[in-house]
Amino acid sequence: MNYAPKGKVNHVVEAGEFQVGVTALDHGHINGMTNGLIEAGATIKYVYDPDPEKVAEYRETFPDVEVADSLEQILEDPEIKMVAAAAVPNLRSALGNRVMKAGKDYFTDKTGFTSLDQLAETRRVQKETGRRYFVYFSERLHVEAAVLAGQLIEEGRIGKVIQVTGFGPHRLDKEKRPDWFFNKEEYGGILADIGSHQIEQFLYYTGNEDAEVIASKVANYDNPDVPELEDYGDATLVGDNGATFFFKVDWFTPDGLPTWGDGRTFITGTKGTIELRKYLDVGREDSLDHVYLVTEEGVEHRQVTGEIGFPFFGQMILDCLNGTEEAMTQEHIFKAQELCLLAQEKAQVIQSKI
Amino acid sequence: MNYAPKGKVNHVVEAGEFQVGVTALDHGHINGMTNGLIEAGATIKYVYDPDPEKVAEYRETFPDVEVADSLEQILEDPEIKMVAAAAVPNLRSALGNRVMKAGKDYFTDKTGFTSLDQLAETRRVQKETGRRYFVYFSERLHVEAAVLAGQLIEEGRIGKVIQVTGFGPHRLDKEKRPDWFFNKEEYGGILADIGSHQIEQFLYYTGNEDAEVIASKVANYDNPDVPELEDYGDATLVGDNGATFFFKVDWFTPDGLPTWGDGRTFITGTKGTIELRKYLDVGREDSLDHVYLVTEEGVEHRQVTGEIGFPFFGQMILDCLNGTEEAMTQEHIFKAQELCLLAQEKAQVIQSKI
Repeated sequence: MNYAPKGKVNHVVEAGEFQVGVTALDHGHINGMTNGLIEAGATIKYVYDPDPEKVAEYRETFPDVEVADSLEQILEDPEIKMVAAAAVPNLRSALGNRVMKAGKDYFTDKTGFTSLDQLAETRRVQKETGRRYFVYFSERLHVEAAVLAGQLIEEGRIGKVIQVTGFGPHRLDKEKRPDWFFNKEEYGGILADIGSHQIEQFLYYTGNEDAEVIASKVANYDNPDVPELEDYGDATLVGDNGATFFFKVDWFTPDGLPTWGDGRTFITGTKGTIELRKYLDVGREDSLDHVYLVTEEGVEHRQVTGEIGFPFFGQMILDCLNGTEEAMTQEHIFKAQELCLLAQEKAQVIQSKI
Repeated sequence: MNYAPKGKVNHVVEAGEFQVGVTALDHGHINGMTNGLIEAGATIKYVYDPDPEKVAEYRETFPDVEVADSLEQILEDPEIKMVAAAAVPNLRSALGNRVMKAGKDYFTDKTGFTSLDQLAETRRVQKETGRRYFVYFSERLHVEAAVLAGQLIEEGRIGKVIQVTGFGPHRLDKEKRPDWFFNKEEYGGILADIGSHQIEQFLYYTGNEDAEVIASKVANYDNPDVPELEDYGDATLVGDNGATFFFKVDWFTPDGLPTWGDGRTFITGTKGTIELRKYLDVGREDSLDHVYLVTEEGVEHRQVTGEIGFPFFGQMILDCLNGTEEAMTQEHIFKAQELCLLAQEKAQVIQSKI
C-alpha cells in the first residue's frame, strides 16, 4: 500500500530550478511520486494536507519539506512549477484543473479520473491553460523491468508486438484502507482505478494511439461486507494497428505472498516474447524487476533493479520546463484514461454464484 | 509436434482385456495417446493407415502392434473395444460416428470437431449407440502439473476458483506441417483446434457445466504466405457460476525457446493462486510440470514429473468397460467442444496493420 520505489539519482535540473508543492496525501503513492521527483532533481518546497497526521507521516520520510498553511499558499507561490498530489480518486481531476488554472503543472496519482465527464473537463482546462496533467502510472513508469521492456521492443528484439497481457493483482489489506476505498463513487471502479496502469502499458508497448474496448467485466466475488468494492475486473482491447490486449486486476493477493502483488506483463512479438515479473519472481526470488526475454537466439533472464533507472521523472520535469512531450504526450495520458473509463462504464457486472 | 508424454505404468486391466485399434495417424499426438493407453493396461492390437510410411513410423515406436489391412478389419474384430485415432481434424467426427456405430468406443485427438454440425451429429450418434466419444485434451490430461492443479483445487487449497487464464503458444514449424494444417476447412480455425484444450480446462477447474463466450478474436499477423492459417486467437468466457476465463493461443513460440511452447495456466482462488508452467520453467529449468502454489500460508514451488501420474487413461478404460463416467462425462466433452466452436464461429477477425 505504501510501496514507494527508489532509484538512481539523475538530476536533470539544478537545486531549486524545479520546485514542487505536494498536497492531498490520501494515497501512499505520494511517497513514490516524491522519490521519483527528488531523484530527478526536483525540490519539494511545500507539503500541505488538511490532516496534520498525514503531513507528519509524510515528513517522517521527507523531513526537509516545509509545511504550507494552505493549498492557496502553494498555488500562489510563483516559485512553484508543479503540484504533486494523491487525492481521493474522484477529486483528482478537479484539483488538477485548479492547479493548471493557477499556472502550475500537475502530477497526480493514478487514476487521474473516475468519470468521462471529469476527463472532458480536464482535457478542456489543459488545452485552455497550456499546463500539463501528468498521471503516475507507476506500474510501468516506476518499474525498471517495465522500462527495460520498452527499450527491448524499441531495439526490435522481439519483432513486432502483436499481443500484451497484464496481470495486476493487489493485496486487499481491508482493515487498513480508508472509507473511500470501498465507495465506488469515490474510487471509480476497479477498471478505472488499478486498470488505468494496464491500458497505458498496452498503448505504450504496442505503439498505439487509440484502441477499442471489446469486452470488460467486474465482480465482487468474496467481499459481501463491502458491496461497492469490485474485487475483480478484466478487459480485452484491440489497438488501432490490430494488436490485442487482455488484462485482469483483482484484490486477491494471498496473504502468503511475500509482496503486495505478483504483477506480470507478457508481451508477444513476431520474433520473441518478454515476460516481466515486476515485484517478485514467485517461488524463486523476492527481488524486483525480473525480465524473461525469449528470442530466436535463446532465453535470457535478467534481474535489473538499479540498472535501468526511471527516465520518466526527468523527462516530465524537462517537458514542463521546455514545452516538449518526451515523457509522454498529454493525448497518450488522456487516451489511456479514456479507455479505462470506457472499460469501466461498459463492464458486464458478474453475479457470482461461486 | 511429436510431443508424446510418458508416465507411470498403472494397469487398470489385465493384458488383452481392453484391446484397441489405432488408425488415422495424421497427427503425432497418436503417440502420446498410445502411451497413455498402454500405461493404463490397454493392448494395442492393430494399427491401420492408408499411408504405409505413417504405419512404419508408428511401428518404430510401437513395434509389437500388428498392421491391419483395413479399417474394416479393426471395426469388425469383436475383441476390439476402442479405436484411437488422430485424423485430419475435420474428419475426426465422421470417423468417430463410424466407430461408435460399429459398437466400439472412440478416442480421438483434439479437436474432436471442426463444426457445430459435426458436433450435433456426433451427439446424436453417441446417444443412439451408447458408445463413448473421448477427446485427447492433452494439455490437461497428459500434464502432471495440470492433474495436480485439479487435486489442489479439490482439496480447497486456494479457496473457491474465480478466474482461470490460459496461454497456449505453439511453435509453428511451418516447413514440417502437412497441407491440411494451413487449410481452415480442414483444421477448423485456431480456437476450434488448439483452443479446445483451453476451454476444457476452464470448465474442469471451475466446476462449470456450461459457460458463455463473451468475446473472441482471431488473426493472421505474420504468415501472409498461408492466409488461411490463424496464427493468433483468444477468447474470454463467463461460467455459469460467474467464474471468468481468458485464454490466448498462438503459433509464435520463438525459435530460441528450448521446447515447443511455454504453456501456462493461472488459477485465481479466493484464498490462493496456482500457476502451472507445463513444459518448462522458462529461463530457470527445462524440466516439465512446474507448479507454483501461493496460499494464505506461503509459496510452494514443486516440479512434479513422475509424482502425479495420468489418471485419465485408466479411468477412461474403466468407464468404457463399466458404463461409468469417472474420467469425464460425455456432456463435459461435448460442451467444451461446443464452446470452442462457438468462440471460433463468433470470433472477430482482426485486420492487422502491424
